[in-house]
Amino acid sequence: MIDVGIYGATGYAGYELLRWLSRHRHARVLFTTSESQAGRSLAEVFPGPLDAPLLAPDDAPLGDADVVFLALPYGVSALVARRARDMGVRVIDLSADFRLAAPQDYQRWYNHVHPAPELLPAPYGIPELNRAALQDAALIANPGCYPTSVLLGLAPLLRAGALTDPLVIVDAKSGVSGAGRAPKQNTHFVEVSESLAPYSIGRVHRHVGEMQQEAARLSNGIEPQIIFTPHLLRINRGILSTIYIRVPPEWSEEQLRACYTEAYAREPFVRLLPAGTLATIAHTAHTNLCTLSVTLAQPGLLIAVSSIDNLVKGAAGQAIQNMNVMFGLDETEGLM
Amino acid sequence: MIDVGIYGATGYAGYELLRWLSRHRHARVLFTTSESQAGRSLAEVFPGPLDAPLLAPDDAPLGDADVVFLALPYGVSALVARRARDMGVRVIDLSADFRLAAPQDYQRWYNHVHPAPELLPAPYGIPELNRAALQDAALIANPGCYPTSVLLGLAPLLRAGALTDPLVIVDAKSGVSGAGRAPKQNTHFVEVSESLAPYSIGRVHRHVGEMQQEAARLSNGIEPQIIFTPHLLRINRGILSTIYIRVPPEWSEEQLRACYTEAYAREPFVRLLPAGTLATIAHTAHTNLCTLSVTLAQPGLLIAVSSIDNLVKGAAGQAIQNMNVMFGLDETEGLM
Amino acid sequence: MIDVGIYGATGYAGYELLRWLSRHRHARVLFTTSESQAGRSLAEVFPGPLDAPLLAPDDAPLGDADVVFLALPYGVSALVARRARDMGVRVIDLSADFRLAAPQDYQRWYNHVHPAPELLPAPYGIPELNRAALQDAALIANPGCYPTSVLLGLAPLLRAGALTDPLVIVDAKSGVSGAGRAPKQNTHFVEVSESLAPYSIGRVHRHVGEMQQEAARLSNGIEPQIIFTPHLLRINRGILSTIYIRVPPEWSEEQLRACYTEAYAREPFVRLLPAGTLATIAHTAHTNLCTLSVTLAQPGLLIAVSSIDNLVKGAAGQAIQNMNVMFGLDETEGLM
Amino acid sequence: MIDVGIYGATGYAGYELLRWLSRHRHARVLFTTSESQAGRSLAEVFPGPLDAPLLAPDDAPLGDADVVFLALPYGVSALVARRARDMGVRVIDLSADFRLAAPQDYQRWYNHVHPAPELLPAPYGIPELNRAALQDAALIANPGCYPTSVLLGLAPLLRAGALTDPLVIVDAKSGVSGAGRAPKQNTHFVEVSESLAPYSIGRVHRHVGEMQQEAARLSNGIEPQIIFTPHLLRINRGILSTIYIRVPPEWSEEQLRACYTEAYAREPFVRLLPAGTLATIAHTAHTNLCTLSVTLAQPGLLIAVSSIDNLVKGAAGQAIQNMNVMFGLDETEGLM
Repeated sequence: MIDVGIYGATGYAGYELLRWLSRHRHARVLFTTSESQAGRSLAEVFPGPLDAPLLAPDDAPLGDADVVFLALPYGVSALVARRARDMGVRVIDLSADFRLAAPQDYQRWYNHVHPAPELLPAPYGIPELNRAALQDAALIANPGCYPTSVLLGLAPLLRAGALTDPLVIVDAKSGVSGAGRAPKQNTHFVEVSESLAPYSIGRVHRHVGEMQQEAARLSNGIEPQIIFTPHLLRINRGILSTIYIRVPPEWSEEQLRACYTEAYAREPFVRLLPAGTLATIAHTAHTNLCTLSVTLAQPGLLIAVSSIDNLVKGAAGQAIQNMNVMFGLDETEGLM
Repeated sequence: MIDVGIYGATGYAGYELLRWLSRHRHARVLFTTSESQAGRSLAEVFPGPLDAPLLAPDDAPLGDADVVFLALPYGVSALVARRARDMGVRVIDLSADFRLAAPQDYQRWYNHVHPAPELLPAPYGIPELNRAALQDAALIANPGCYPTSVLLGLAPLLRAGALTDPLVIVDAKSGVSGAGRAPKQNTHFVEVSESLAPYSIGRVHRHVGEMQQEAARLSNGIEPQIIFTPHLLRINRGILSTIYIRVPPEWSEEQLRACYTEAYAREPFVRLLPAGTLATIAHTAHTNLCTLSVTLAQPGLLIAVSSIDNLVKGAAGQAIQNMNVMFGLDETEGLM
Repeated sequence: MIDVGIYGATGYAGYELLRWLSRHRHARVLFTTSESQAGRSLAEVFPGPLDAPLLAPDDAPLGDADVVFLALPYGVSALVARRARDMGVRVIDLSADFRLAAPQDYQRWYNHVHPAPELLPAPYGIPELNRAALQDAALIANPGCYPTSVLLGLAPLLRAGALTDPLVIVDAKSGVSGAGRAPKQNTHFVEVSESLAPYSIGRVHRHVGEMQQEAARLSNGIEPQIIFTPHLLRINRGILSTIYIRVPPEWSEEQLRACYTEAYAREPFVRLLPAGTLATIAHTAHTNLCTLSVTLAQPGLLIAVSSIDNLVKGAAGQAIQNMNVMFGLDETEGLM
Repeated sequence: MIDVGIYGATGYAGYELLRWLSRHRHARVLFTTSESQAGRSLAEVFPGPLDAPLLAPDDAPLGDADVVFLALPYGVSALVARRARDMGVRVIDLSADFRLAAPQDYQRWYNHVHPAPELLPAPYGIPELNRAALQDAALIANPGCYPTSVLLGLAPLLRAGALTDPLVIVDAKSGVSGAGRAPKQNTHFVEVSESLAPYSIGRVHRHVGEMQQEAARLSNGIEPQIIFTPHLLRINRGILSTIYIRVPPEWSEEQLRACYTEAYAREPFVRLLPAGTLATIAHTAHTNLCTLSVTLAQPGLLIAVSSIDNLVKGAAGQAIQNMNVMFGLDETEGLM
């Protein structure tokens, strides 16, 4: 039995971790922390299916855990990671703190000196793209929700060297839980409810750094340049990324599709949809799946559509999948 | 041409006032104020169909207005009302400050000494129920959204003395714009979006005071005792009040319906639906209408359902209707 | 291992059954049927987390199953139930066919001669209220979604003989999945999306018969008379029932609460909320829980609020809970 | 006073026409027709703010109208248009029947021989782009909702000859009212509500033909090739089109913005947003506005975002605007 600690259990990702772990046969939750709700119980904060005492982070028996999940703000997370590593406890970090391999990239995108550069680089936790590096890892950087969606949609083409133009256009739409639980004007129900709003478009969203780093690493051809347009969608969960890629005009849809089939045929959580079926957010809601569709709009232009649940494959589910890989368990354990 | 000032133009009710007044042929907006956004223009704050400079409240040329609409927090509103009245400017107050006739009732429900008791009592602005008192009024208390919906649904029976039991059960559901524009945890999109949540149930919501006062005034029989259960609905606009009333067991649905027909046959904004058609929120969205259905569930128990748009008939639209009555204009002017 | 057959796997309840059963450690799905999609696979129909071949109902190896779940239209369901029982296969029926003990009640409410009266009466499957009758049962009538929500909210008071007036007012709100998967005008997105609509109010909704039968059976005092006002809510899942009950004026909220505590203290799926916390739909979404709040609005009038997920505790989850009881398993197996 | 007839008054666009025309000072509605609801009144069909008798199309006094709006299915519309023109009545057609200038294009995109080719070509009714051709026109083809949104977002760059690559990528998202009122599986509330679904992507949606025709006409440089990816959005109204255009790398955002300023500075219904503000669907809901933002993602790639209400600027509002142009009225009459 793997003893698990969860830091930040009252945020959306932390709660989702607990929900899925309650179904895991080889892991049990040893403790849960909350900065703001310490001293209360989870069922007091939200009277749903789960309960657990909420400890102040400093009161948690960190050393007794085999692995901890950190669902904490960036900057804070790395400090807990350092303490955990000092005690020999493994870490799966859901914040952005270990996603960028170089401290200077972190500083550029997060405007903050990296709090624990000695732990860098950490393997980037998308098992479908980076499995070998995650086995027996001591620290895994759990990816951002948008990057998971985009990289799964792009990787087969990047590996195949199929890009004919560096510009890759990603028009992404995310549910509001991606913006976290703290109330803000732009997540007020009335503002979101009858709208759809793009934000941080072009090359400025923080996830661009992470996507660029991994896309460059995956590419066997020209280095992609990602144009990223996120939109805030009036939905709780789910990300749909519609990706426009220039490919060799002589490649048929079948050839392009074959890149994806080969990459994902044995993956339990990635589902390439048959020709004519397009990925939608409903496919993956409340699951750890990624569904993908690929459509040749015209010779030379492919539209890949990628759907995930931002709180599952985009956060908590992928973190558990990473734990399963880390400890050599069946990768699907607890995630069906 | 009536010169109008609007205090609090960037809240939902204030904005709605401006939208409807832009279509009014006999009124024009002289100034608009905003405490938080003073110095900007309305189109900067929200790039929609309207624009106007936003003045600090103290900078507004109050004395040049014929009438001012106050879409301000309670407590603040009464002070502006006093200044307006001192200058001879008429007032339609959308806050709660003048809805309760007795200062001690205000203190009880709002936990606050009344800031301008010398202006009490002010006529209560539901024209369909209180038209005579509003003509030529200098100050009108624009009702709360829930009370408008409930009182229009109850009044015909109260006047007919048809209650056989004081307990009237009101199960009400309101869109989120009723909670105002400031972001809070319970109006965060994710919290509202897949839920329905009752709040302040029983006899504790502040609108109970106002409903009780007016229901007692309207009743020609026993004094009703309103049990009020509001629910927060995942919708921007609209209130549906489902009202349960014990009536004489020998009264038929036709007799009960006749009370309503008589009350509202000539009212342009209240629509009694034919037998078999139930009121829904969609009927009245973006209109100044109230639709009503009455159904005899079994002998002795009537279910009245009342639908309004909380921002129109429940706030800005009714305020303009009150202005039309106040100035002797066609009551529907600007409101179709 | 229990071998399970599912009839009607492509409807919302059928799909939900499959989803939960995929996590059950002591049951496995032997076959799934679909009238309209026979010959296809489930993943072709909906490319989500599940897959299974869809058989025509007549092609299913009924005799090989230990138990079958029938998620079929009323009228059709009873005929499959008869065939199953003839072959000694146990049945959990999610349709309305076996909920009413007397065939003449079925005829009254469903306007249809009962297709298999020899199988009546079947035990009514709310384990919290009727557990003994469900153990080792050969056929269980899985209750309607509304009745589950209402009866769990009412039962403790009925048993305590606490009603002082037969009229019990139930103002219920249900998500659209309760109306089934076939597209109709009143479930068209645009019609539902910015509305809230009551329907079949008073004493006419088909679930009234079922609620009356069970409420009468549970009551140790006067026989309740339920006034039932369902509303169609712009949400996919969830039922909130707000229930108004007249109780002895001298009973305190604590006394009334004690009836509920006693009834449900050891129930894993019913959660009585602490004073001051009201039940909301979010609490129970995607769970087999029922959360309940009880509030004394004023002496003599209790407001009970009951929340369930109509597809889980209101359909598929309760059906699995019934299977667990039927086969003597831990009642929570597969349902966390 | 202009006497107006409306064919197809019970669809979403027809109803919207009536709503806006009720505020028009120089037009009055002479008759309204409905194929399916003939003989009833509008308020019986939908008990909202409007009422009018619904005539069978053949019973309408067509000859008495000055102009008719046709909110009818394609194929049907052209036949009514022919009858109107034969009687000298002007026509604004909201169907697709007159949008494509060449009958063979109609046949290609609509798979149907053109029913009234003698009336082709009709001026294409986006006043901001084609005003001169609309003045005194006898027949105007009211554009599709998507094309209106896309062409307003593209036109200034096309006219400036700013495209460096023919491929223009349009990622568009539309509210469900765009799919019409007839219930279908893909517009069932439950299917739409927690999803976002692309459909007809690439070069196959029927609106591509119309966009190509007009974009080619507007272009002073290379002919654009539009890649069009519509998505069905869980909202009633509104279209947001996110448009990716390759422009000369040496052009600054200011230069590009200047093209838009020049094009729209005097347009009452098109609002170019200041740098840093992005267009959202909320801006234009229930208005005849189009809001536009332009952002240089990096040198050589512009992202234009265009927002309209698909039922107003994308249908009924633009139709009235076209009527105003046709009859030489103030273009904003009835549309504020």
